Amino acid sequence: MPINKLLKQIAFIKEIDKIKYIQRRSKLFNSERRENDAEHSWHIAVMAIVLAEHSNKPINILKVLKMLLIHDIVEIDAGDTFVYSTTKSHSNTEEELIAAKRIFGLLPEEQAKELIAIWEEFEEGITEDAKFAKSMDRFEPLLQDVANDGGTWMEFNVPFQQVYDVNKEIKKGSETI
Amino acid sequence: MPINKLLKQIAFIKEIDKIKYIQRRSKLFNSERRENDAEHSWHIAVMAIVLAEHSNKPINILKVLKMLLIHDIVEIDAGDTFVYSTTKSHSNTEEELIAAKRIFGLLPEEQAKELIAIWEEFEEGITEDAKFAKSMDRFEPLLQDVANDGGTWMEFNVPFQQVYDVNKEIKKGSETI
Repeated sequence: MPINKLLKQIAFIKEIDKIKYIQRRSKLFNSERRENDAEHSWHIAVMAIVLAEHSNKPINILKVLKMLLIHDIVEIDAGDTFVYSTTKSHSNTEEELIAAKRIFGLLPEEQAKELIAIWEEFEEGITEDAKFAKSMDRFEPLLQDVANDGGTWMEFNVPFQQVYDVNKEIKKGSETI
Repeated sequence: MPINKLLKQIAFIKEIDKIKYIQRRSKLFNSERRENDAEHSWHIAVMAIVLAEHSNKPINILKVLKMLLIHDIVEIDAGDTFVYSTTKSHSNTEEELIAAKRIFGLLPEEQAKELIAIWEEFEEGITEDAKFAKSMDRFEPLLQDVANDGGTWMEFNVPFQQVYDVNKEIKKGSETI
Protein backbone atom coordinates (compact mmCIF):
# COMPACT_ATOMS: atom_id res chain seq x y z
CA MET A 1 0.00 0.00 0.00
CA PRO A 2 2.24 2.85 -1.15
CA ILE A 3 -0.44 5.43 -0.24
CA ASN A 4 -0.74 4.27 3.38
CA LYS A 5 3.03 4.34 3.72
CA LEU A 6 3.16 7.75 2.09
CA LEU A 7 0.61 9.18 4.54
CA LYS A 8 2.67 7.97 7.49
CA GLN A 9 5.79 9.43 5.94
CA ILE A 10 4.07 12.78 5.41
CA ALA A 11 2.96 12.82 9.05
CA PHE A 12 6.61 12.37 10.03
CA ILE A 13 7.76 15.07 7.58
CA LYS A 14 5.33 17.55 9.13
CA GLU A 15 6.26 16.62 12.70
CA ILE A 16 9.99 17.17 12.21
CA ASP A 17 9.34 20.72 11.01
CA LYS A 18 9.37 21.52 14.74
CA ILE A 19 13.14 21.26 15.05
CA LYS A 20 13.30 24.63 13.26
CA TYR A 21 12.07 26.16 16.53
CA ILE A 22 14.65 24.48 18.77
CA GLN A 23 17.32 27.03 19.57
CA ARG A 24 20.86 25.95 20.36
CA ARG A 25 23.23 27.93 22.60
CA SER A 26 25.70 28.48 19.75
CA LYS A 27 25.32 31.43 17.45
CA LEU A 28 25.79 31.75 13.70
CA PHE A 29 29.26 32.79 12.53
CA ASN A 30 30.07 36.40 13.47
CA SER A 31 26.52 36.86 14.62
CA GLU A 32 24.28 37.46 17.61
CA ARG A 33 21.55 35.12 16.38
CA ARG A 34 21.38 31.65 17.92
CA GLU A 35 21.26 28.71 15.55
CA ASN A 36 18.36 26.28 15.41
CA ASP A 37 18.60 22.51 15.12
CA ALA A 38 17.62 22.35 11.42
CA GLU A 39 20.32 24.86 10.44
CA HIS A 40 22.88 23.03 12.56
CA SER A 41 21.97 19.64 11.08
CA TRP A 42 22.22 20.99 7.55
CA HIS A 43 25.59 22.57 8.19
CA ILE A 44 27.23 19.51 9.73
CA ALA A 45 25.90 17.31 6.92
CA VAL A 46 27.61 19.53 4.32
CA MET A 47 30.73 19.54 6.51
CA ALA A 48 30.78 15.74 6.49
CA ILE A 49 30.64 15.71 2.67
CA VAL A 50 33.49 18.20 2.44
CA LEU A 51 35.68 16.82 5.25
CA ALA A 52 35.16 13.06 4.80
CA GLU A 53 38.73 12.57 3.55
CA HIS A 54 40.07 13.59 6.99
CA SER A 55 38.37 10.73 8.81
CA ASN A 56 40.83 8.52 10.71
CA LYS A 57 39.23 5.39 9.29
CA PRO A 58 37.19 4.62 6.16
CA ILE A 59 33.56 5.60 6.64
CA ASN A 60 30.23 4.99 4.96
CA ILE A 61 29.37 8.59 4.12
CA LEU A 62 25.71 7.80 3.37
CA LYS A 63 25.30 6.38 6.88
CA VAL A 64 27.11 9.40 8.36
CA LEU A 65 24.78 11.79 6.50
CA LYS A 66 21.71 9.95 7.73
CA MET A 67 23.04 10.14 11.30
CA LEU A 68 23.73 13.86 11.10
CA LEU A 69 20.44 14.74 9.42
CA ILE A 70 18.30 12.93 11.99
CA HIS A 71 20.38 13.08 15.19
CA ASP A 72 18.60 16.10 16.69
CA ILE A 73 15.01 15.11 15.86
CA VAL A 74 14.57 13.67 19.38
CA GLU A 75 15.03 17.19 20.76
CA ILE A 76 11.48 18.00 19.59
CA ASP A 77 10.35 16.19 22.74
CA ALA A 78 13.52 16.12 24.87
CA GLY A 79 14.84 19.65 24.21
CA ASP A 80 18.41 20.74 23.51
CA THR A 81 20.94 20.12 26.29
CA PHE A 82 23.91 22.51 26.32
CA VAL A 83 27.04 20.51 25.52
CA TYR A 84 28.88 22.23 28.40
CA SER A 85 26.04 21.72 30.88
CA THR A 86 27.26 20.59 34.30
CA THR A 87 23.84 19.61 35.55
CA LYS A 88 22.49 17.39 32.78
CA SER A 89 24.08 14.69 30.69
CA HIS A 90 24.13 15.52 27.00
CA SER A 91 23.66 12.09 25.56
CA ASN A 92 21.29 9.21 25.37
CA THR A 93 18.92 9.95 28.19
CA GLU A 94 15.83 7.89 28.77
CA GLU A 95 13.86 10.96 27.67
CA GLU A 96 15.54 10.94 24.27
CA LEU A 97 14.84 7.27 23.71
CA ILE A 98 11.14 7.78 24.40
CA ALA A 99 11.21 10.72 21.98
CA ALA A 100 12.93 8.61 19.30
CA LYS A 101 10.29 5.91 19.61
CA ARG A 102 7.42 8.38 19.38
CA ILE A 103 8.73 10.50 16.49
CA PHE A 104 10.38 7.86 14.28
CA GLY A 105 7.40 5.70 15.21
CA LEU A 106 5.23 7.89 12.99
CA LEU A 107 6.94 6.22 10.00
CA PRO A 108 6.12 2.80 8.54
CA GLU A 109 7.49 0.14 10.90
CA GLU A 110 10.56 -1.00 8.95
CA GLN A 111 11.67 2.57 8.37
CA ALA A 112 11.13 3.53 12.01
CA LYS A 113 13.32 0.62 13.08
CA GLU A 114 16.06 1.59 10.64
CA LEU A 115 16.19 5.23 11.73
CA ILE A 116 16.04 4.43 15.45
CA ALA A 117 18.97 2.03 14.95
CA ILE A 118 20.95 4.75 13.11
CA TRP A 119 20.16 7.27 15.85
CA GLU A 120 21.26 4.78 18.56
CA GLU A 121 24.48 4.03 16.68
CA PHE A 122 25.23 7.76 16.60
CA GLU A 123 24.47 8.21 20.29
CA GLU A 124 26.66 5.28 21.32
CA GLY A 125 29.54 6.71 19.30
CA ILE A 126 31.38 3.40 18.96
CA THR A 127 31.46 2.69 15.22
CA GLU A 128 33.77 4.61 12.87
CA ASP A 129 30.74 6.21 11.20
CA ALA A 130 29.42 7.42 14.55
CA LYS A 131 32.83 8.72 15.64
CA PHE A 132 33.23 10.77 12.48
CA ALA A 133 29.63 12.01 12.69
CA LYS A 134 30.18 13.10 16.29
CA SER A 135 33.36 14.93 15.33
CA MET A 136 31.30 17.00 12.85
CA ASP A 137 28.68 17.67 15.53
CA ARG A 138 31.42 19.09 17.80
CA PHE A 139 33.50 20.86 15.17
CA GLU A 140 30.78 23.23 13.92
CA PRO A 141 30.15 24.96 17.31
CA LEU A 142 33.91 25.07 17.93
CA LEU A 143 34.38 27.00 14.66
CA GLN A 144 31.45 29.23 15.63
CA ASP A 145 32.81 29.93 19.11
CA VAL A 146 36.20 30.84 17.64
CA ALA A 147 34.55 33.12 15.02
CA ASN A 148 32.55 34.79 17.81
CA ASP A 149 35.51 35.67 20.07
CA GLY A 150 34.88 32.84 22.49
CA GLY A 151 31.14 32.68 21.90
CA THR A 152 29.34 30.35 24.32
CA TRP A 153 32.60 29.73 26.24
CA MET A 154 32.76 33.36 27.29
CA GLU A 155 29.02 33.82 27.63
CA PHE A 156 28.60 30.90 30.01
CA ASN A 157 32.08 30.99 31.65
CA VAL A 158 33.06 27.52 30.50
CA PRO A 159 36.52 26.61 31.88
CA PHE A 160 39.27 25.81 29.36
CA GLN A 161 39.62 22.24 30.60
CA GLN A 162 35.96 21.54 29.93
CA VAL A 163 36.16 23.00 26.42
CA TYR A 164 39.20 20.83 25.83
CA ASP A 165 37.56 17.66 27.17
CA VAL A 166 34.38 18.10 25.15
CA ASN A 167 36.27 18.82 21.94
CA LYS A 168 38.70 15.93 22.38
CA GLU A 169 35.83 13.96 20.84
CA ILE A 170 36.78 15.47 17.49
CA LYS A 171 40.08 13.62 17.54
CA LYS A 172 38.32 10.25 17.71
CA GLY A 173 36.84 11.03 14.31
CA SER A 174 39.74 12.92 12.78
CA GLU A 175 43.30 13.49 13.98
CA THR A 176 43.87 16.06 11.21
CA ILE A 177 40.98 18.26 12.27
CA MET B 1 49.06 18.84 2.28
CA PRO B 2 46.01 17.93 4.42
CA ILE B 3 46.32 21.21 6.38
CA ASN B 4 46.18 23.42 3.29
CA LYS B 5 43.16 21.53 2.05
CA LEU B 6 41.55 21.73 5.46
CA LEU B 7 41.98 25.51 5.58
CA LYS B 8 40.25 25.88 2.22
CA GLN B 9 37.47 23.60 3.37
CA ILE B 10 37.00 25.64 6.55
CA ALA B 11 36.79 28.85 4.51
CA PHE B 12 33.97 27.22 2.50
CA ILE B 13 32.23 25.98 5.67
CA LYS B 14 32.22 29.51 7.09
CA GLU B 15 31.03 31.08 3.83
CA ILE B 16 28.01 28.81 3.47
CA ASP B 17 26.77 29.84 6.94
CA LYS B 18 25.23 32.77 5.03
CA ILE B 19 22.42 30.69 3.57
CA LYS B 20 20.86 30.75 7.04
CA TYR B 21 19.99 34.40 6.33
CA ILE B 22 18.34 33.76 2.96
CA GLN B 23 14.60 33.85 3.45
CA ARG B 24 12.29 31.93 1.16
CA ARG B 25 8.69 32.92 0.41
CA SER B 26 7.31 29.74 1.95
CA LYS B 27 6.56 29.59 5.64
CA LEU B 28 7.07 26.83 8.20
CA PHE B 29 4.17 24.43 8.70
CA ASN B 30 1.19 26.13 10.37
CA SER B 31 3.29 29.20 10.95
CA GLU B 32 3.80 32.84 10.06
CA ARG B 33 7.60 32.57 9.99
CA ARG B 34 9.30 32.30 6.60
CA GLU B 35 11.76 29.47 6.15
CA ASN B 36 15.43 30.02 5.37
CA ASP B 37 17.51 28.10 2.85
CA ALA B 38 19.39 26.02 5.45
CA GLU B 39 16.17 24.83 7.07
CA HIS B 40 14.66 24.06 3.66
CA SER B 41 17.74 22.12 2.53
CA TRP B 42 17.77 20.07 5.73
CA HIS B 43 14.09 19.25 5.42
CA ILE B 44 14.17 18.08 1.82
CA ALA B 45 17.27 15.96 2.52
CA VAL B 46 15.41 14.10 5.28
CA MET B 47 12.40 13.83 2.95
CA ALA B 48 14.56 12.18 0.30
CA ILE B 49 15.77 9.59 2.83
CA VAL B 50 12.22 8.83 3.90
CA LEU B 51 10.55 8.94 0.46
CA ALA B 52 13.26 7.35 -1.72
CA GLU B 53 11.16 4.21 -2.26
CA HIS B 54 8.57 6.26 -4.18
CA SER B 55 11.00 7.31 -6.89
CA ASN B 56 9.86 6.31 -10.38
CA LYS B 57 13.29 4.90 -11.18
CA PRO B 58 16.18 3.56 -9.07
CA ILE B 59 18.26 6.42 -7.68
CA ASN B 60 21.64 6.92 -6.05
CA ILE B 61 20.44 8.33 -2.74
CA LEU B 62 23.91 9.59 -1.75
CA LYS B 63 24.06 11.69 -4.93
CA VAL B 64 20.51 12.94 -4.31
CA LEU B 65 21.42 13.99 -0.75
CA LYS B 66 24.49 15.87 -1.97
CA MET B 67 22.34 17.68 -4.56
CA LEU B 68 19.73 18.69 -2.02
CA LEU B 69 22.21 19.79 0.64
CA ILE B 70 24.17 22.06 -1.71
CA HIS B 71 21.56 23.16 -4.28
CA ASP B 72 20.76 26.51 -2.65
CA ILE B 73 24.30 27.60 -1.79
CA VAL B 74 24.48 29.71 -4.98
CA GLU B 75 21.71 31.88 -3.54
CA ILE B 76 24.28 33.45 -1.21
CA ASP B 77 25.29 35.55 -4.22
CA ALA B 78 22.31 35.17 -6.56
CA GLY B 79 19.44 35.43 -4.03
CA ASP B 80 16.28 33.35 -3.84
CA THR B 81 13.92 33.58 -6.79
CA PHE B 82 10.27 32.89 -6.00
CA VAL B 83 9.27 29.68 -7.76
CA TYR B 84 6.03 31.34 -8.96
CA SER B 85 7.78 34.51 -10.14
CA THR B 86 6.51 35.73 -13.51
CA THR B 87 9.37 38.19 -14.06
CA LYS B 88 12.47 36.10 -13.41
CA SER B 89 13.41 32.58 -14.38
CA HIS B 90 13.92 30.32 -11.40
CA SER B 91 16.66 28.14 -12.74
CA ASN B 92 20.21 28.15 -13.96
CA THR B 93 20.79 31.81 -14.63
CA GLU B 94 24.20 33.15 -15.55
CA GLU B 95 24.24 34.79 -12.12
CA GLU B 96 23.92 31.43 -10.38
CA LEU B 97 26.75 29.91 -12.39
CA ILE B 98 29.09 32.73 -11.41
CA ALA B 99 28.02 32.24 -7.80
CA ALA B 100 28.69 28.49 -8.00
CA LYS B 101 32.17 29.09 -9.35
CA ARG B 102 33.01 31.61 -6.64
CA ILE B 103 31.60 29.74 -3.64
CA PHE B 104 32.49 26.13 -4.51
CA GLY B 105 35.77 27.59 -5.78
CA LEU B 106 36.78 28.21 -2.16
CA LEU B 107 37.29 24.44 -1.87
CA PRO B 108 40.31 22.46 -3.09
CA GLU B 109 40.13 22.18 -6.89
CA GLU B 110 39.00 18.57 -7.26
CA GLN B 111 36.27 19.01 -4.69
CA ALA B 112 35.09 22.27 -6.26
CA LYS B 113 34.76 20.54 -9.63
CA GLU B 114 32.81 17.65 -8.13
CA LEU B 115 30.30 19.87 -6.33
CA ILE B 116 29.82 22.22 -9.29
CA ALA B 117 29.10 19.17 -11.46
CA ILE B 118 26.56 17.88 -8.94
CA TRP B 119 24.92 21.32 -8.74
CA GLU B 120 24.73 21.52 -12.56
CA GLU B 121 23.25 18.03 -12.77
CA PHE B 122 20.54 19.11 -10.33
CA GLU B 123 19.81 22.33 -12.22
CA GLU B 124 19.54 20.53 -15.56
CA GLY B 125 17.10 18.06 -14.04
CA ILE B 126 17.68 15.37 -16.66
CA THR B 127 19.10 12.40 -14.74
CA GLU B 128 16.91 10.23 -12.50
CA ASP B 129 18.78 11.49 -9.43
CA ALA B 130 18.12 15.11 -10.40
CA LYS B 131 14.46 14.44 -11.19
CA PHE B 132 13.86 12.87 -7.80
CA ALA B 133 15.84 15.62 -6.04
CA LYS B 134 13.75 18.27 -7.80
CA SER B 135 10.55 16.54 -6.80
CA MET B 136 11.63 16.85 -3.14
CA ASP B 137 12.48 20.53 -3.67
CA ARG B 138 8.93 21.13 -4.92
CA PHE B 139 7.06 18.83 -2.58
CA GLU B 140 8.12 20.53 0.68
CA PRO B 141 6.65 23.97 -0.15
CA LEU B 142 3.54 22.30 -1.56
CA LEU B 143 2.99 20.56 1.80
CA GLN B 144 3.64 23.86 3.56
CA ASP B 145 1.23 25.79 1.38
CA VAL B 146 -1.45 23.20 2.01
CA ALA B 147 -0.77 23.28 5.79
CA ASN B 148 -1.00 27.09 5.70
CA ASP B 149 -4.43 27.32 4.01
CA GLY B 150 -2.98 28.17 0.64
CA GLY B 151 0.15 29.89 1.96
CA THR B 152 2.15 31.62 -0.76
CA TRP B 153 -0.53 30.81 -3.36
CA MET B 154 -3.05 32.97 -1.55
CA GLU B 155 -0.55 35.60 -0.40
CA PHE B 156 0.77 36.26 -3.89
CA ASN B 157 -2.40 35.42 -5.87
CA VAL B 158 -0.81 32.61 -7.82
CA PRO B 159 -3.31 31.17 -10.34
CA PHE B 160 -4.23 27.49 -10.04
CA GLN B 161 -2.80 26.66 -13.45
CA GLN B 162 0.60 28.02 -12.46
CA VAL B 163 0.62 26.05 -9.20
CA TYR B 164 -0.31 22.97 -11.19
CA ASP B 165 2.40 23.55 -13.82
CA VAL B 166 5.16 24.14 -11.29
CA ASN B 167 4.21 21.12 -9.22
CA LYS B 168 3.89 18.82 -12.22
CA GLU B 169 7.67 18.54 -11.77
CA ILE B 170 7.01 16.30 -8.78
CA LYS B 171 5.54 13.66 -11.06
CA LYS B 172 8.78 13.38 -13.02
CA GLY B 173 10.44 12.17 -9.82
CA SER B 174 7.56 10.23 -8.35
CA GLU B 175 4.18 9.24 -9.74
CA THR B 176 3.04 8.05 -6.30
CA ILE B 177 3.67 11.39 -4.64
